[in-house]
Amino acid sequence: MNNLKGAAIIGQSGGPTSVINASAAGVFIEALKQPNITRVYGAAHGIKGILNEEFYDINQEDLKELELLKTTPSSSIGSVRYKLKPLDKDDSEYKRLLEVFKKYNIRYFFYNGGNDSMDTCNKVSKFFKDSGYECFCMGVPKTIDNDLWATDHCPGYGSAAKYVATSFMELRCDATVYDTPMVSIVEVMGRNAGWLTAASALASYKGCGPDLIYLPEIPFDLDKFYQDVERVYKQNNGKVLIAVSEGIKTKDGKYVPELVSDNIAQDSFGHKQLGGTASILADLLKNKMNVKVRAIEFSLLQRCAQHLASKVDVEEAFNAGSEAVKAACEGVTDYMIGFKRHMNNGKYECEYIRIPLADVANAEKKVPLEWITPDGTGLTQDYIDYALPLIQGDCKAPLEDGLPRFAKLKKILVEKK
Amino acid sequence: MNNLKGAAIIGQSGGPTSVINASAAGVFIEALKQPNITRVYGAAHGIKGILNEEFYDINQEDLKELELLKTTPSSSIGSVRYKLKPLDKDDSEYKRLLEVFKKYNIRYFFYNGGNDSMDTCNKVSKFFKDSGYECFCMGVPKTIDNDLWATDHCPGYGSAAKYVATSFMELRCDATVYDTPMVSIVEVMGRNAGWLTAASALASYKGCGPDLIYLPEIPFDLDKFYQDVERVYKQNNGKVLIAVSEGIKTKDGKYVPELVSDNIAQDSFGHKQLGGTASILADLLKNKMNVKVRAIEFSLLQRCAQHLASKVDVEEAFNAGSEAVKAACEGVTDYMIGFKRHMNNGKYECEYIRIPLADVANAEKKVPLEWITPDGTGLTQDYIDYALPLIQGDCKAPLEDGLPRFAKLKKILVEKK
Repeated sequence: MNNLKGAAIIGQSGGPTSVINASAAGVFIEALKQPNITRVYGAAHGIKGILNEEFYDINQEDLKELELLKTTPSSSIGSVRYKLKPLDKDDSEYKRLLEVFKKYNIRYFFYNGGNDSMDTCNKVSKFFKDSGYECFCMGVPKTIDNDLWATDHCPGYGSAAKYVATSFMELRCDATVYDTPMVSIVEVMGRNAGWLTAASALASYKGCGPDLIYLPEIPFDLDKFYQDVERVYKQNNGKVLIAVSEGIKTKDGKYVPELVSDNIAQDSFGHKQLGGTASILADLLKNKMNVKVRAIEFSLLQRCAQHLASKVDVEEAFNAGSEAVKAACEGVTDYMIGFKRHMNNGKYECEYIRIPLADVANAEKKVPLEWITPDGTGLTQDYIDYALPLIQGDCKAPLEDGLPRFAKLKKILVEKK
Repeated sequence: MNNLKGAAIIGQSGGPTSVINASAAGVFIEALKQPNITRVYGAAHGIKGILNEEFYDINQEDLKELELLKTTPSSSIGSVRYKLKPLDKDDSEYKRLLEVFKKYNIRYFFYNGGNDSMDTCNKVSKFFKDSGYECFCMGVPKTIDNDLWATDHCPGYGSAAKYVATSFMELRCDATVYDTPMVSIVEVMGRNAGWLTAASALASYKGCGPDLIYLPEIPFDLDKFYQDVERVYKQNNGKVLIAVSEGIKTKDGKYVPELVSDNIAQDSFGHKQLGGTASILADLLKNKMNVKVRAIEFSLLQRCAQHLASKVDVEEAFNAGSEAVKAACEGVTDYMIGFKRHMNNGKYECEYIRIPLADVANAEKKVPLEWITPDGTGLTQDYIDYALPLIQGDCKAPLEDGLPRFAKLKKILVEKK
């Protein structure tokens, strides 16, 4: 136990998920209980909110609404995609953060996000340490991409996987309903890791999923793709359902949109903006095979479909938040809460572990190649066994008028000092 | 009560819904109970299955699986988009239908679909009558479009509306999460009637929906659209969420895809194939305003998302099927089962009524203009009061491994005579 008294702040960063607010709820509710935490703040739009001294006073929120955050999708206090400048080139933002932390006596920092966010948290933590400012910095994982290093899985994945698997089962029912041929290509999020696209294999495991699954882990070959589709087309009377990750790329490292255009926009992290993969493949396939092809994008729905959240995921996300607070209050810093899986007599259990932020920052965990079938278009039973426990149970928002009742925060901005 | 003994057949036609199988279950389960119905058949792919003498023997199915049809999306025995040739030009298909009906002594015909299907049912019924063949023909309504004439609403609408409203609430949480401007345009199905797009207003009613809603009932004006978006953009710090029906058209009758291309494909009913409206508007808006715009299509998901089915809708869909069988067995023919709403002390109740097929065939019921706000971009409280009762209650498939357990029919083809 450390004896440092001070305020706590949490920031949410990166793409939203169905359960990132469950982690925020875990941080908020636990932090409000801790005797050493004098005040609880929520940064508006992550690190930018701290730089701008814009944060909400969580002590003024109703506990009932904070509890409802468990079943409220997306990032209630606002998210951000913002990369701090490299410390060796420009330390002004780090100095500014330190200034703000000192001004409000913030001694507990929780950053909730994916690899980039863990990198940010790690850098801030180091700078504070080097500056002699005592502050306990903990990462809280979040990503539907499931690609964080050294943790069995990530909060957000189970719910997104449940959405993808369920939607594929429903789409299979719909897309095969006529007696005429129809090829359907469904695009799933995932830049470099195919975890979320792999979840479509859960639908196939239930006998109602895609025939072909393309992950970024396997170099994409357009000619092989044509052959795969033609084979299934013949076998299944012209009914083909395909799952593609937006991040599939050729062995030369080209994304599908780059096969038809040289001009791909980039986001503020320097990542190429993907999307459109399914519709480009659909056009190519139409031209090649002269068949009816439909492209479907799950788009934002796959990351915010709280109504299909997995109970296991919501609970783990909440616990990741509260465990981070407990660790910080014990004096732990510069770690992320991770998950370790135990199978006891076939029953899944999750242990919360602490992983050095430096191990997580900017590393990526991909789908193991041995979990991909030899033809490169399916997943093995090992993947099914891995994923099934993560999608168990329902945990949707309470209904009001037949529609979800999400948390309504007061969001009272702290007066600037 | 009529005394005609014979087989019954049901066909499913047109686009699938989350509850068309619930209606099929209603027909199957009721028909299996009726003493005058000697055998129950399910036509493979609607009217085409009858023409081809391809139908399944429903008497051989397990009752448990037939019950599961209530929560199985899409058309389990296969759907079709097939228009019979006009009787005065070519009566060969009608004669063939008569031949098949006689061969299997089919005396009860149930056709489950939208306007086109009611038209088909009506034509077949008339031809049988004119030919002196006694057969009780009943329409069972189905359409997420909610555009069938003379019925308060249609089976399929409540569930699709619940999906649209819930998804808009979730998308609103997600699409406004960053501190940077973002215009999101979401395309909803609906060719000439804006009922399903209107359901997005339920999300706005809950404080978490689109800012602007464009229905086909109001002529679409691109310049006004730009002005609307710019106004909201300024009011909301660059966050704009828009719902557009795929069927919006200009006062000259041009669909949005026709604003940028002259070459629009048609389906077998001669309807123009829409889709792409949101992405075309997104491109136009990007060019005009130089802002970040995202296009989202609900695509097939909105009509097959059984996991968000409304309990009211599922029960009414089932009852529409069983009521059709009861009516036919009473000797009623050439009618469709429709819904009449009663409000008793604020409590919604549905009465099942019988509507002449001729009144329904090819007529379309649109959103009343007085339910659209004067600026043409929202819905009034009258619409909210109309729609809310239809989306109440959950009725999803039982879970197995965390995923829906849909009906598994044996689908044993009847031996051709």
